[in-house]
Amino acid sequence: MFKIAEFYEFGPAAEAIQLGSAPDFEKPEGDQVIVDMLVMSINPADLLTIEGNYGIRPKLPNTPGAEGVGKVTEVGPDVRNLKIGDIVLPLGGGSWREKIRCRETMAIKLPKGIDLQQAAMIKANPATAEVMLSSLVDLEEGDWVIQNASNSAVGRFVIKIAKQKKLNVAAIVRRKNLVDMLKSDGADCVLIADAQTHTQDMVRKLDAACDGNRPKLAMDAIGGYASNQLAACLADGGKIYNYGLLSGKPCEVDPFHLVFRAIELRGFWLADWFKTATPPDIADMYGRLIPMVQNGEISGAVEAVYPLDEIKTAVAHAAKGGRSGKILLKTNKN
Amino acid sequence: MFKIAEFYEFGPAAEAIQLGSAPDFEKPEGDQVIVDMLVMSINPADLLTIEGNYGIRPKLPNTPGAEGVGKVTEVGPDVRNLKIGDIVLPLGGGSWREKIRCRETMAIKLPKGIDLQQAAMIKANPATAEVMLSSLVDLEEGDWVIQNASNSAVGRFVIKIAKQKKLNVAAIVRRKNLVDMLKSDGADCVLIADAQTHTQDMVRKLDAACDGNRPKLAMDAIGGYASNQLAACLADGGKIYNYGLLSGKPCEVDPFHLVFRAIELRGFWLADWFKTATPPDIADMYGRLIPMVQNGEISGAVEAVYPLDEIKTAVAHAAKGGRSGKILLKTNKN
Repeated sequence: MFKIAEFYEFGPAAEAIQLGSAPDFEKPEGDQVIVDMLVMSINPADLLTIEGNYGIRPKLPNTPGAEGVGKVTEVGPDVRNLKIGDIVLPLGGGSWREKIRCRETMAIKLPKGIDLQQAAMIKANPATAEVMLSSLVDLEEGDWVIQNASNSAVGRFVIKIAKQKKLNVAAIVRRKNLVDMLKSDGADCVLIADAQTHTQDMVRKLDAACDGNRPKLAMDAIGGYASNQLAACLADGGKIYNYGLLSGKPCEVDPFHLVFRAIELRGFWLADWFKTATPPDIADMYGRLIPMVQNGEISGAVEAVYPLDEIKTAVAHAAKGGRSGKILLKTNKN
Repeated sequence: MFKIAEFYEFGPAAEAIQLGSAPDFEKPEGDQVIVDMLVMSINPADLLTIEGNYGIRPKLPNTPGAEGVGKVTEVGPDVRNLKIGDIVLPLGGGSWREKIRCRETMAIKLPKGIDLQQAAMIKANPATAEVMLSSLVDLEEGDWVIQNASNSAVGRFVIKIAKQKKLNVAAIVRRKNLVDMLKSDGADCVLIADAQTHTQDMVRKLDAACDGNRPKLAMDAIGGYASNQLAACLADGGKIYNYGLLSGKPCEVDPFHLVFRAIELRGFWLADWFKTATPPDIADMYGRLIPMVQNGEISGAVEAVYPLDEIKTAVAHAAKGGRSGKILLKTNKN
């Protein structure tokens, strides 16, 4: 038997989540591998899923968990590229458990010695930043991109990954005291969006920085009027991709920008990218991120690590506001 | 000399517009024709242009007028397809004048005997409806489309033209007393969006009508929360095209629809379509509309017709709310 977190009905996350157990897997067949999970993360999307408030409502019972790393403990007879002892990033969901069985193409091999906590946080947020910057709009070196909520986890990855791609980043943030941090992350132009800021002033400051080479891509994690600020900053024909709803409000875009400037508003969901990406696309994408994690160029903050046994305490902690970093889970194999 | 309306500075439309005169054209060269204008229309976009509030601010002085019909009075030596006496629809702007000179490809020939008032209103509104229905989303017979402001001039053309194309139309309108009119125009499902209506009820009623074959295309003339109502009604992956701003508010779309249902929000501007359309595209598009005007299938309401000499009175009338139809201009050639 192995331990597995599950919920049987939608509800407040820390109440609904339960620790259960499942029978051990049979020997792996074909190209299957068995992975002992080591470190897993808790993301806002996991909590929304348990509450029944995420984009898709899974069949119940369900095991949450989008991210995690583990170690290969058994391999099927047709497995080619993985061996026992390899550290891997399983791509399927349901990571909050001690063991996973999957096809070898559904587990990305990680380099020996990689920081396991950082590796356990690579699948969702850094991948969101990487895929937004590489797949939504054709961008060339020297092009500008713009985003809001620049101090969020994804926001900071966007800056660091954009700099790797030799893109220029305009980073909108609400608090002035975050400017230095974002500049040291690599932001080329930091724009303040507090109650005193007029969008026109923001656009003027951006124009001075980008010298007429306005962004073609805007990444919006806020919604509400913040979406329209991005619209005002884009080049004609530019695209806003919303991927978060920090304001809790609908995205707003003025018809002037839509009709006369051909601005478009769309959504980005990493899960949709995975649906159409091929295994080589996925390996390629993580292949770009892994070295950046390894050499410390991208890293996420961790507030606490809980054993899987304490899943309810961990989820309750993750649901609290004002954290300084992620809540992680670990198994006793770690 | 011929009479021409012009404005020299942006301002309140009836104050800024002036009646002036221009020297007669030289003999037409090459494939040029001279057209004596007969009937011209006044559109909201003309008034916004004079006020300086339209998407593009023209160089001054400028002659407004997007629509009108005239009669060919002179032809250049290389003109092939037009002859003196032909009734034409000039495609260039600046129609509020007695004479226009243009290349023959920039004047669409109309059938003899066509109603001149109806022909003078074909270029903008019916074309907006036709191009939205034919160029934005791939639609097949039996597909559904949805729109709001269904009782507007464009809205009613959308219904009539969609029925010609064997599309099904869901027509949103605010006032219950318009249901019968829209049904007799051809709307397959009329949805009321008054203060008492919940979007969920609207979606339920639409689903009952379209039997799961939800619209892929939504046409939005209102903005604000009305855009989000369209988003809720669309099939996953559907597109909202805003072409009007009757609410004066930014378009709103909930991130849920953008991120998890791949709904997109864009703008539609007929002028952009003209920029990339070839002369055969344009002739083809009006070729679909002209028979519908001729046989009375599409027609617009007229509230008053003024001589070009009374341009200030005509513009003042057009600027008033609560009209029952368009304000037209005529020359003394008519």
